[in-house]
Amino acid sequence: MTKTIGILGGMGPLATCDLFHKIIDITDAGCDQEHVCVCIDSNSAIADRTKAILEGGEDPVPEMVKSAVRLQSMGADVLIMPCNTAHYFYDRIVPFLDIPMLHMIRETVKTVRQRGLTKVGLLATDGTCRSGVYETAFHAEGIEMYVPSPARQQAVMDVTYKGVKAGNLSIDLTGFYAAMDELFDQGAQTLILGCTELPVAFDLFHIDRPSIDPTMVLAAAAVCFVGANVKEDAGY
Amino acid sequence: MTKTIGILGGMGPLATCDLFHKIIDITDAGCDQEHVCVCIDSNSAIADRTKAILEGGEDPVPEMVKSAVRLQSMGADVLIMPCNTAHYFYDRIVPFLDIPMLHMIRETVKTVRQRGLTKVGLLATDGTCRSGVYETAFHAEGIEMYVPSPARQQAVMDVTYKGVKAGNLSIDLTGFYAAMDELFDQGAQTLILGCTELPVAFDLFHIDRPSIDPTMVLAAAAVCFVGANVKEDAGY
Repeated sequence: MTKTIGILGGMGPLATCDLFHKIIDITDAGCDQEHVCVCIDSNSAIADRTKAILEGGEDPVPEMVKSAVRLQSMGADVLIMPCNTAHYFYDRIVPFLDIPMLHMIRETVKTVRQRGLTKVGLLATDGTCRSGVYETAFHAEGIEMYVPSPARQQAVMDVTYKGVKAGNLSIDLTGFYAAMDELFDQGAQTLILGCTELPVAFDLFHIDRPSIDPTMVLAAAAVCFVGANVKEDAGY
Repeated sequence: MTKTIGILGGMGPLATCDLFHKIIDITDAGCDQEHVCVCIDSNSAIADRTKAILEGGEDPVPEMVKSAVRLQSMGADVLIMPCNTAHYFYDRIVPFLDIPMLHMIRETVKTVRQRGLTKVGLLATDGTCRSGVYETAFHAEGIEMYVPSPARQQAVMDVTYKGVKAGNLSIDLTGFYAAMDELFDQGAQTLILGCTELPVAFDLFHIDRPSIDPTMVLAAAAVCFVGANVKEDAGY
């Protein structure tokens, strides 16, 4: 009996689709039947995570739990959640589950360690930065982490919200490039694309800088978890 | 309360992902919360549809029904199925459902009529061609439909199975181009990309010929069905 990956999605929908695509892409399968089973709940009723953390906005947890429980009842053997910021709420979701949920941020930190890197730059939403999810995880492993200065951070938010989430391909990227340069100038050896819209942005806008894509890390971890093989040339 | 689109997927996984992406892409939404809810069951246990129709292979219907019922229990308000060949089994699935399932082939025929076209060429798997699903639907509307000669048809199968489904980007496309030329020579005004892997192939291999993409037609029909708006510049 093949195992099923459940994707708690909708945060946002494109990032959910990107994770699904990466799972298919890296799985070593020669026909439909050799692919892994995936069930997805792309739930657009989940409230904005950044607003909840920074502005006391609507709590996203109830809808996240509803989706997680639905996926479990669909037959998912493991859950993954393609939204970095959402991992701030991870500990409030798992008590409702009888199946494991992989932790995107911890998987990413593991990958950084495996590559022997010691200094990283974080590109993420204000919510993810201020929630401290990455900072806590990196510092626990003795890895230094830098974030953009406030002026540059706005450009990261703009690419995420006004660019990818709004489907606007004509957004000005000058500030975003400056944010990346700033992190490398501080000593970062690679960039953590710590918002699931950012690997989408890197693809859409053909951005070519050293980076680790937590969506890809999570896809590979999930494919391995259900016992399928990751292609040798997956190159993540 | 927003309505949910259910995708009966896994036939194949990339086509499922392509349909999901098209739904997101054409929806007129400015943030995550304005997107439609989508639940997906990418069920790789569903047996090959073409083999079932042509060679008496394993019946795919039981697994298709299981997925459909799971999606209904997840809260789907309407189902769609991104596999043309699978529509041969449509009438055996709907009796198990309390929600409607849009019919990709009938939606495509509707689109051809709306554009005032009278002659189309069908690119599809052997299973879809021989099942007669498109032929019956087009002839009922007085639209002429051509299929490739047997030698050219093999190239269509190869692009689908050995190209897209197997993730092989280096496949030789000479025979596939000859198949398309043959259909236009017969008088086809457009090509029906009657296998969900084919719009993926058109993207992957940058093929630029007049065509109608039933996956896009189905995405638009589903977005309209749940009451969301399709972007004006969706261009399908």
